[in-house]
Amino acid sequence: MSTASIFDFAPLLPAGLPAPAARWTGLAKYSFVGGNNDPDQVPVDGLIAAMTAVLQREGKTLATYGLASGPQGYRPLREFLTKKLKRDAGIGCTTDDVMIVSGSLQALDLVNATLLARGDTVLIEQETYQGSLSRLTRLGVKTVGIPLDDEGMRMDALAAVLADHKRRGIMPKYIYTIPTVQNPTGSILPEARRAEMIKLSQEYGVPIFEDDCYADLIWNGQRPPAIYAMSKQGGVIHIGSFSKSIAPALRVGFIVAPWEMMSRMLALKTDAGSGALEQMVLAEYCTPHFETHVPKLTRGLRAKLDTLMEALNEQFGTSAEFEDPKGGIFLWVKLPDNVDTLKLYQAALAAGVAINPGPEWSTDKSYAGSRLRLCFASPSHEQIREGVAVLADVCRKEFGVPERSANVEKRARS
Amino acid sequence: MSTASIFDFAPLLPAGLPAPAARWTGLAKYSFVGGNNDPDQVPVDGLIAAMTAVLQREGKTLATYGLASGPQGYRPLREFLTKKLKRDAGIGCTTDDVMIVSGSLQALDLVNATLLARGDTVLIEQETYQGSLSRLTRLGVKTVGIPLDDEGMRMDALAAVLADHKRRGIMPKYIYTIPTVQNPTGSILPEARRAEMIKLSQEYGVPIFEDDCYADLIWNGQRPPAIYAMSKQGGVIHIGSFSKSIAPALRVGFIVAPWEMMSRMLALKTDAGSGALEQMVLAEYCTPHFETHVPKLTRGLRAKLDTLMEALNEQFGTSAEFEDPKGGIFLWVKLPDNVDTLKLYQAALAAGVAINPGPEWSTDKSYAGSRLRLCFASPSHEQIREGVAVLADVCRKEFGVPERSANVEKRARS
Repeated sequence: MSTASIFDFAPLLPAGLPAPAARWTGLAKYSFVGGNNDPDQVPVDGLIAAMTAVLQREGKTLATYGLASGPQGYRPLREFLTKKLKRDAGIGCTTDDVMIVSGSLQALDLVNATLLARGDTVLIEQETYQGSLSRLTRLGVKTVGIPLDDEGMRMDALAAVLADHKRRGIMPKYIYTIPTVQNPTGSILPEARRAEMIKLSQEYGVPIFEDDCYADLIWNGQRPPAIYAMSKQGGVIHIGSFSKSIAPALRVGFIVAPWEMMSRMLALKTDAGSGALEQMVLAEYCTPHFETHVPKLTRGLRAKLDTLMEALNEQFGTSAEFEDPKGGIFLWVKLPDNVDTLKLYQAALAAGVAINPGPEWSTDKSYAGSRLRLCFASPSHEQIREGVAVLADVCRKEFGVPERSANVEKRARS
Repeated sequence: MSTASIFDFAPLLPAGLPAPAARWTGLAKYSFVGGNNDPDQVPVDGLIAAMTAVLQREGKTLATYGLASGPQGYRPLREFLTKKLKRDAGIGCTTDDVMIVSGSLQALDLVNATLLARGDTVLIEQETYQGSLSRLTRLGVKTVGIPLDDEGMRMDALAAVLADHKRRGIMPKYIYTIPTVQNPTGSILPEARRAEMIKLSQEYGVPIFEDDCYADLIWNGQRPPAIYAMSKQGGVIHIGSFSKSIAPALRVGFIVAPWEMMSRMLALKTDAGSGALEQMVLAEYCTPHFETHVPKLTRGLRAKLDTLMEALNEQFGTSAEFEDPKGGIFLWVKLPDNVDTLKLYQAALAAGVAINPGPEWSTDKSYAGSRLRLCFASPSHEQIREGVAVLADVCRKEFGVPERSANVEKRARS
């Protein structure tokens, strides 16, 4: 066929589409990006046993959309979740209050589609999940960042922003928070702040959107009750995921919400149900094994975090600053002010190291400009050490920091 | 808590939301709705064996989003599809031209999001898939129905509508067609009409959106090449699904498209990948077994269709008119003009029989007003016979047709 005659779609594309994707070129050799988890901690044998049992018992129901459990998802998984949420997060709910979704990303989409219109405003932690920020940007929604400290969202700042918006006649549509192992900072919002947030939410009529995706992975296993559990008046939408506790490729998350919101989100969930095998295997595996699997996983993650912090100290010395996170799979790192992590990202990738540059994870691009997020769950201990060494080399070459230290010299010769 | 203090989301909801969903009340006793399949034909043992093998080999990759196959989906499944599409539909494509999606519904969403804006026009078969119609309505897109005959979309009508739109300065965004086992009519568009459609598409610069979701289920196993395969200039987006050939609850479909469109759709697929277990098990199961599974499934479906047609003849006599479909899982039935199938739907549901009323499956609500779609794959032979008898009773009570026939009397006493 002649090139001239090839059909051209370009004149048909509507305005406002995102840029076309580049062709995928594979994973980086040292990958510190995304929410990937530890391959050695996927409970493969347990999943196989669970899958075999559930398919032998109920495999025929795959012929029916939704496994004959209705549009809110596989009932045994919702039953597991109501028990788990009660035990871990203090949430008292029934299976009717729970909807299974295709990863917490679909939860974000459904909540957003139910509440947001172009031009709306939402309040959001200043440093937050890039997937939430980018969705809001695409929807044409204004994100107002509330500063964090080492205990999460600052309530004085939230109160001031709410009062300011009220004065200006603007009703924010929700307060989005990741209160329990904040992404990317790893803090846990104390119970007193949660109570204060609920009070402010009620006072201003602005609901709370609680994203608890990382809440299972806490080093000491202790967490405050969910905001959803603490609110006596409702007004909270709670979401969670199995991506961090079992495996991200499964794409299973959930929403807990009052029927007023649930019925609206169900009307917008026109996908004929989330994947059945994942729902079935998770219900079958988690009901007996979740409580023992998660502490084991968490111990392994904590060990990897220690390796990462050691490697950073060794390779970057005082050039890399970070708080020891309370759980999760991420470390939020501050480099010297002259480092531009968007540039570092490009140079590091060319050297085989993938990082998440700070500006993608913050409403304050300048504050986050010398910061980056490192996921330590996916690479091995060895890859963590090697990858951080390569990253330090690249950073030194591009930005002159870290200066070469005695430690590094010594290690390089050993 | 006092009722008065409960948080009220209502003031926050944007305009234009669909009506809230009603609470789910379970499946009907006799269910002839949706695309549900035959529970006895789910290859449960084969799926268990495939799942065990693939998880033992690759289970650790569940820790990585997208199974380290990138955003277009699990590579072995795309490899299976390129071979299958070549063999069955004559499509020559590479794994780079294929994207795995969460059911063909996500394919519809991605194609629509890439091409459509509010106020656009698309051309669509006058009788067509309800999920496609309802999506377009929600997007504020005008659907122009092209009439069908027993060989599918009428090309004289398509030519006339394209010419008319050109005169009026309107560029339709695509021609949507289900050419191979049309839903709901069960026809197969002959090769000559496919060639004519491609010619018209090129002439007017309007791409073809080819939905081949039911194409695996053809009684005689013979099908014309896909429109995608026949077009020498491109301009075709092809979608398909495993819902009809393996199991609908899996939620796995695919898109074949040129990179110009693929790169745009990838930018809009922000779900971090479709469900991994389904993709893995389908690749592992289908590569050796698809070719033997599908003819067996199809034979069973044909037998159920025969039961349905017999039951309709017996219970409705000449009051129910239908063409013998060339494949698939649906029968499109015409009842006497005085029957309103939207009303029949309500009355039948109350009696335990679920049907799809015609107006939901057509752009011409009046033409389709006395028509209905029956899915025969899901109910057993016995349920088909009993369900049709109940439906006839309800129809007689509500609309006076069918008149009680000797056959029915005889059967009732036997």
